[in-house]
Amino acid sequence: MIELDFKKGGGLLPAVVQDHASGKVLMVAYINQASWDKTLESGEAHYWSRSRKEIWHKGGTSGHVQKIREIFVDCDKDTVLFRVEQVGGAACHTGYESCFYRKIGADGGATIVDEKVFDPERVYKK
Amino acid sequence: MIELDFKKGGGLLPAVVQDHASGKVLMVAYINQASWDKTLESGEAHYWSRSRKEIWHKGGTSGHVQKIREIFVDCDKDTVLFRVEQVGGAACHTGYESCFYRKIGADGGATIVDEKVFDPERVYKK
Repeated sequence: MIELDFKKGGGLLPAVVQDHASGKVLMVAYINQASWDKTLESGEAHYWSRSRKEIWHKGGTSGHVQKIREIFVDCDKDTVLFRVEQVGGAACHTGYESCFYRKIGADGGATIVDEKVFDPERVYKK
Repeated sequence: MIELDFKKGGGLLPAVVQDHASGKVLMVAYINQASWDKTLESGEAHYWSRSRKEIWHKGGTSGHVQKIREIFVDCDKDTVLFRVEQVGGAACHTGYESCFYRKIGADGGATIVDEKVFDPERVYKK
């Protein structure tokens, strides 16, 4: 059983999330030991929400869970890569497939280069 | 000019580095404002070395620089994605193409799934 290095980041380390089929980078989130254990146990991505300070089962509200297909660990054991099947086709709470929907131009400005997959007001309304 | 949110991470934020041609995730490193500016100015990836506490021109020693092809920023502006041309074919100091050369199995153990591109003892020797 591999031991990740959570110490360097004060108990948290980043997880890069990539679509297993397209190779698109969808998002980066943070994991602690408990969310790592939950991810391995359940086969669905669990993170640590830095804003809410709680375990975050991605897709728990929206239904857009991330089914783990492969996990890789980096040379320093302080970053993981989740290759996932993104249910619902969008990882970002804004409705885009990827959180990286803005491209930086030569002038340092950002331009939206993707189309929304869903309307966040519909998905998240109670 | 986009302003990244460096505050959340105490002056640093993660950069995910992806091969622009293959889509392979190569590494994650950290940037501060100065390394971000250097990256935009020079067109080659510059990071902040958390261990050496200095600006790190990736490839400065090995020659394995990362030529920036595209940059994306995430929804919260606290993570960036560099799509690069990796000179030398390997991003990892261990000699592997990607730092994510180990796959986690169902039992939580790690297995090396890549081949080394270079011998680190030759590249880094003085």
